[in-house]
Amino acid sequence: MSTAGDRPRLRKVDLAAAFGAFDERWSPKIVAALNGQHVKLAKVEGDFVWHSHADEDELFFVVHGRLEMHLRDGVIVLEPGELLVVPRGVEHKPVAPVETHILLFEPAGTVNTGDADTDRRVDADWLD
Amino acid sequence: MSTAGDRPRLRKVDLAAAFGAFDERWSPKIVAALNGQHVKLAKVEGDFVWHSHADEDELFFVVHGRLEMHLRDGVIVLEPGELLVVPRGVEHKPVAPVETHILLFEPAGTVNTGDADTDRRVDADWLD
Repeated sequence: MSTAGDRPRLRKVDLAAAFGAFDERWSPKIVAALNGQHVKLAKVEGDFVWHSHADEDELFFVVHGRLEMHLRDGVIVLEPGELLVVPRGVEHKPVAPVETHILLFEPAGTVNTGDADTDRRVDADWLD
Repeated sequence: MSTAGDRPRLRKVDLAAAFGAFDERWSPKIVAALNGQHVKLAKVEGDFVWHSHADEDELFFVVHGRLEMHLRDGVIVLEPGELLVVPRGVEHKPVAPVETHILLFEPAGTVNTGDADTDRRVDADWLD
């Protein structure tokens, strides 16, 4: 488990090596902490669930693959090298048509499924 | 200018296009805001100054080039695809032996030169 009290670790993170260290889909791994926020990596593929976060803005950065961010009024497609912030309160459903590697930046303690009642919820742990 | 009150903008950012939109060195541009934090892009080359930030942890992610983070007890070298968090209070001097493109995550209002008395200070503005 991790908390907002996580202290930064003065060591570099190689994203390629970190993505190579796990295979689960839709199960973000924490790789860095700063200012009460976490940097997480996730491998995603297929559809996630509609949800929103009442108090957290959430950044998605695509490293590999393609992420379609479904919003109630449209879809924003992210290719590698593109990022998007989904503001708190905005309903969204991430969809990855192929295996996709994403970096997330969000407050420590953010739950992946937000307000949704679903078995897709997982607690993020540090990738060590 | 920008403040911690900046609201997230629901639009994607293409890092390659954003880096193509400015040429100044050591002058971070804000491209996204979330949770009182800013995502900034900077082109850097050569030596910066020794400094620290009393209250801000600072993340450096290298997109292109090579960043040598000098610390009082050593150097951590970052290649593209690698990131490092420098915790608050830790003295550091970024050095880029070649033109290098970096992404920064840090609290809104973070001053690039921290506690250093230097003319290298610049106020970050949004890249629009």
